[in-house]
Amino acid sequence: MSRSTRGLLAAVGVVSAAAGALHYAGAPTLVAFVVAGLALAGLAWMVSFTTEQVGEHFGPAVTGILQSTLGNLPEFFVVIFALSQGEVVVAQFSIIGSIFANALLVLGFVIVVGSRASEDGIMRFSPRLPNDTATLLLLSGFIIVLVGISAETHDKASDDIYTISAIAAVAVLIVYGVWVYGYLKSESRAAGDGPRPPARMPLRTSIGLLALGGVGAAFVSEWFIDSLRPTIDQLGISEEFAGLVIVAIAGNAVEHAVGVVLAAKGQADLAISVVKNSVAQVAAFLAPALVLVSLAFADRLTFDLAPVYVAALALTIISIWQITSDGEATYFEGAALIATYVILAVFTLYE
Amino acid sequence: MSRSTRGLLAAVGVVSAAAGALHYAGAPTLVAFVVAGLALAGLAWMVSFTTEQVGEHFGPAVTGILQSTLGNLPEFFVVIFALSQGEVVVAQFSIIGSIFANALLVLGFVIVVGSRASEDGIMRFSPRLPNDTATLLLLSGFIIVLVGISAETHDKASDDIYTISAIAAVAVLIVYGVWVYGYLKSESRAAGDGPRPPARMPLRTSIGLLALGGVGAAFVSEWFIDSLRPTIDQLGISEEFAGLVIVAIAGNAVEHAVGVVLAAKGQADLAISVVKNSVAQVAAFLAPALVLVSLAFADRLTFDLAPVYVAALALTIISIWQITSDGEATYFEGAALIATYVILAVFTLYE
Amino acid sequence: MSRSTRGLLAAVGVVSAAAGALHYAGAPTLVAFVVAGLALAGLAWMVSFTTEQVGEHFGPAVTGILQSTLGNLPEFFVVIFALSQGEVVVAQFSIIGSIFANALLVLGFVIVVGSRASEDGIMRFSPRLPNDTATLLLLSGFIIVLVGISAETHDKASDDIYTISAIAAVAVLIVYGVWVYGYLKSESRAAGDGPRPPARMPLRTSIGLLALGGVGAAFVSEWFIDSLRPTIDQLGISEEFAGLVIVAIAGNAVEHAVGVVLAAKGQADLAISVVKNSVAQVAAFLAPALVLVSLAFADRLTFDLAPVYVAALALTIISIWQITSDGEATYFEGAALIATYVILAVFTLYE
Repeated sequence: MSRSTRGLLAAVGVVSAAAGALHYAGAPTLVAFVVAGLALAGLAWMVSFTTEQVGEHFGPAVTGILQSTLGNLPEFFVVIFALSQGEVVVAQFSIIGSIFANALLVLGFVIVVGSRASEDGIMRFSPRLPNDTATLLLLSGFIIVLVGISAETHDKASDDIYTISAIAAVAVLIVYGVWVYGYLKSESRAAGDGPRPPARMPLRTSIGLLALGGVGAAFVSEWFIDSLRPTIDQLGISEEFAGLVIVAIAGNAVEHAVGVVLAAKGQADLAISVVKNSVAQVAAFLAPALVLVSLAFADRLTFDLAPVYVAALALTIISIWQITSDGEATYFEGAALIATYVILAVFTLYE
Repeated sequence: MSRSTRGLLAAVGVVSAAAGALHYAGAPTLVAFVVAGLALAGLAWMVSFTTEQVGEHFGPAVTGILQSTLGNLPEFFVVIFALSQGEVVVAQFSIIGSIFANALLVLGFVIVVGSRASEDGIMRFSPRLPNDTATLLLLSGFIIVLVGISAETHDKASDDIYTISAIAAVAVLIVYGVWVYGYLKSESRAAGDGPRPPARMPLRTSIGLLALGGVGAAFVSEWFIDSLRPTIDQLGISEEFAGLVIVAIAGNAVEHAVGVVLAAKGQADLAISVVKNSVAQVAAFLAPALVLVSLAFADRLTFDLAPVYVAALALTIISIWQITSDGEATYFEGAALIATYVILAVFTLYE
Repeated sequence: MSRSTRGLLAAVGVVSAAAGALHYAGAPTLVAFVVAGLALAGLAWMVSFTTEQVGEHFGPAVTGILQSTLGNLPEFFVVIFALSQGEVVVAQFSIIGSIFANALLVLGFVIVVGSRASEDGIMRFSPRLPNDTATLLLLSGFIIVLVGISAETHDKASDDIYTISAIAAVAVLIVYGVWVYGYLKSESRAAGDGPRPPARMPLRTSIGLLALGGVGAAFVSEWFIDSLRPTIDQLGISEEFAGLVIVAIAGNAVEHAVGVVLAAKGQADLAISVVKNSVAQVAAFLAPALVLVSLAFADRLTFDLAPVYVAALALTIISIWQITSDGEATYFEGAALIATYVILAVFTLYE
C-alpha cells in the first residue's frame, strides 16, 4: 500500500468519525451535513478502491463482477435511508441524479480533459462500451418514461405502478446480467492467460477495508440523510436540487473524478470505461435492484418523475449516445455535456 | 412443391375451415377465437409464401413489389373489420402492435439466435436496410407523435385530425414509393442479370393459392374480430393488450418466425431483411393506406394514441435504430429488445 | 463584380424601395406584405453575399466568424420587430421555423438534388459537420424541451422561466463559441498557408454594401412585420403557420437556395456546410442571443412552445442526425425530410 493511499484512507476514517461525532453531538445542521457529505464521498472512493484490490487476487472477471455489484454500495445505502424516512423524491433524484452527474458532468470533464491530452484535439476510444451503455440506458429509460407519463396522465396502468415497476425491474436486471456476463467474458479473453501483476495489498487487508468501508458507508449514509431535510429547509432549496446535485455529487461523482485523472494521462479507454460502467450500473442494476428492495418498505420506489425530468433523462441518453457512439470526442462535445448538466441543475434550483 | 409445404398448406386449410365451422355453429367464444387466431397466423404465412412463389416467375423486382404491397394482406383485413365494427382502439393497436411485435420481439429473437450462430457472438449484417427502416419509422413516427400530442392537449389542430392525417398519409406513401423504387433497383442491380433459379411452383398454382389465401384471410379476419370483443369481455383484458399482443402476434409475428429460422442458419442479412422490411411496410405503407381507406368508414382510423404509447413508439424507433445501425448485434442487444417488448406488454395488461 | 451580381443587387434595391413606398403609401395589406417579403429574402441574400466578400480580404477564419455572427442579421431584425409589437408567437415560430425550414426543407432538396448529381445515387460528404450540428441542436433542444414542458405542466420552475432561459442562453452561447473556435481552427489548418485567391470586390465596396444591406434589412423587417398581423387576419391563417412557413422561408430559406445549386454541381460538402452551418447558427447563436437581447423588451422571448412543436423539434433533430450522421444520403432520405416539413406545415395550417 503506497503512503498516499494510506494517508487517504486515514483521512476518510477521520472525516467519517467527525461526521459521527457531529451527528450524535447535535451539531448545527449545515456543518453536520457538509461533513457527512465529505465522509460519504470518501467512503464511496474507499469502497470502489478496495473492491478493486480484492479483485486483483482473482483476476479481471471477479473484479468486474465485484465492481458491478458492490461499486455503488454507498449510493445504495443513501437511497435506502432516504426511503425509510419517507423522502421518496430525494431517493428518486439521487438515482437519476447519479446518472446525470456521471453521464453529463463527469463524462463532460473527462472529454474536455481527454481531448486536450490528445495531440490533434480528438479523444479516441473503443465505441463498444458507449454503445452498450446507450442500449442499457434506453432500456431503463423506456420503463422510466412509461411510468412517468402513465402517472402524469393518470391512466389505468398508473394504479398498478408498483407491480409494473417490479416486473420491469426484473426484466432490466436479467438484461444487465446477460450484458455483464458477455462483457466480462470478452474482457478476460482480451486480457489473455498471461501472468497477472502481483496484487498491491494482501487479500485479508483488502477484504477488511472493504467491509469497513461498507459498514462506514451504511452509518454515514444515515447521518447524511438525517441532516438532509433540515438542510433543505434551512437553505430553502428544492428536494430535486438536493437529490440531483448535492446527493448525486457526494455519493457518486467525486468517486469518478478518477476518470478525469485517467483522461489527463491519455488513458482514454480506461477513463471512458470508469464513467460509462458506472452509468450503466446505476441505470440497469442499482435502480431496478432498489425498486425490488423497496417493496419491503412503507414508501416504495418508483420512477414517477415529473415530465420535465422524464424528458431531460430521455434527451440525456440520446445526447451521450450521439456524442460517444463514434468512438471520438472533442473539447466542444465535452463542453456541450457540461452545459447540459448546468442547464438541468439551474432548472432544479427553481423547482 | 415439397411435401412439408403441401402439409402446411393443408393444415392451414383445415384450421381455417374449422374456424369457419366454429363461427357459424356459435361455438364458445374462447374456442372460436383461438382457432380463428391460429387460422389467421397460418393464412398470413400462406399469403407471404405464395407471394414469393408468384414473384419467382418474374424476378426480384416484381417479388419485391408484390411483397411490399400484398405482404400484410391479413393484417389489412383485420384492421378493416375492426374499424367496421367500431373497434377503433383494437384497429390502432393492431397496427402499432405489429410494429412493436416485429421490431422488438421478433427482431430480438432473431438477434439472440443470430448472435449464437456466429462464432464470435456478433451477428453481422448490412447496415443499409436497418438505417432505411429507421428513416421510414421516424417519418411515420413524426405524424403519429404529432397527432397523439395534438389530441391529448386538445389544441386547435385536433379538430381537423382526419384531414391532417390523410394529407400526412399521402406524404408518407409517396416517400415509401420512392424508397421501394430505389431499394428494388439497387437490389436487382446487386442480383445481376444471371439466369434465375427455376421457380418451385407453377405460376397458375401460385396465383391460385395466393388468391385462396387472400380470400381466406378476409373471411377468417372477420370471424377473428367477431369473437374478439366477447373474448376481451370474458377474459377481462384491455383492448390495448388484445391489439398489441394477441392480434399483433397472430396477424403478423408468427409469419416472421421464419426470420428466426434464417438467423439460426447464419443467414444474418436475410433474417434482418425479413423483419425490417415488414416493419417498414407496416409503418410506411399499411398504416397510411389504412388511414386513407378508412375515410370511407363511419369510424375512421387516426393515431391519437395515449401519451404512453406515443412515447413507447418513439423510444422503440430510437432503440432499434441504436442497436442495428452499426450492422452488428450481440446476444445482449437481442435480450434488451425482448425485455422492452415484455415491459410494454405488461403495461398494456394493466390498462 | 460580375454583371449578374450587379443586376441582382440592383433588383434587391428596387424591390426594397418598392416595399418602402407601398408601406408609407398605405397600400393594400397583402401587396405590401408580399413585396416586403420578397425584399427581405433579397436582403438576406445580399447580407450573406457581402459578408463573404468582406471575409475574402482576411481569409477563411475571419469569413467564418463574420458569417457565424452577421449571417442571420435579417432574421434577427424580424424577431426584434415582432417582439417590439408584442407578436411573441410569431417571433418564436420565426426562429424555430428557420430551423425547420433549413433542416428539413432546404436540406431535403439539397439531398434530393445532390444524390441525383452523384453517379451511384448516393451523396457523400464529411460527417463531421452534421454530427457537430446534431450536438449543438441537442443542446439547444434540451433547454427548449425543458422550458416547453415546464410551461405546459405549470411546475414551479415555470415561474422563473425568464431567468432560467437567460442562464441557459449564456451556457449555449459559450458552447457555440467553443465550437466556432475549434471549427475555424481546423478549417484554416485544412486550408493551409497557400496564397489566397484574389478578392472579387474591393474591400470598401463590400463593407459599404454590407452596411447598406444591414440597414435595409432593419427597415424592411419592420415593414414586413407591420403588415404581417393584418395579413394573418385577412387570410385567416394561424400565427404558427405565418412564423413557421412564411417568415421562415422569406427570412432564411431563400438565401440557402444556394445550397441546392451547389448540390446540383456535385459540391456535396459545400452544399451541406451552407445548410448545416445555418441551422447550427440559428439554434445555438441567434436563438440564445435573442433571448438575452429580449430581456430589454416588454415582451421577452422564451421557448414555451406548445407540446406538439416541442415534440416536432425533438424529432426533427433526431431525424436529421439519423439521416446525415453517416456522411451519406440518398434521394429517398431527402424526400423523407421534405415530407416531414410538409406534414409539419399542414399541421400549423390548422392551428
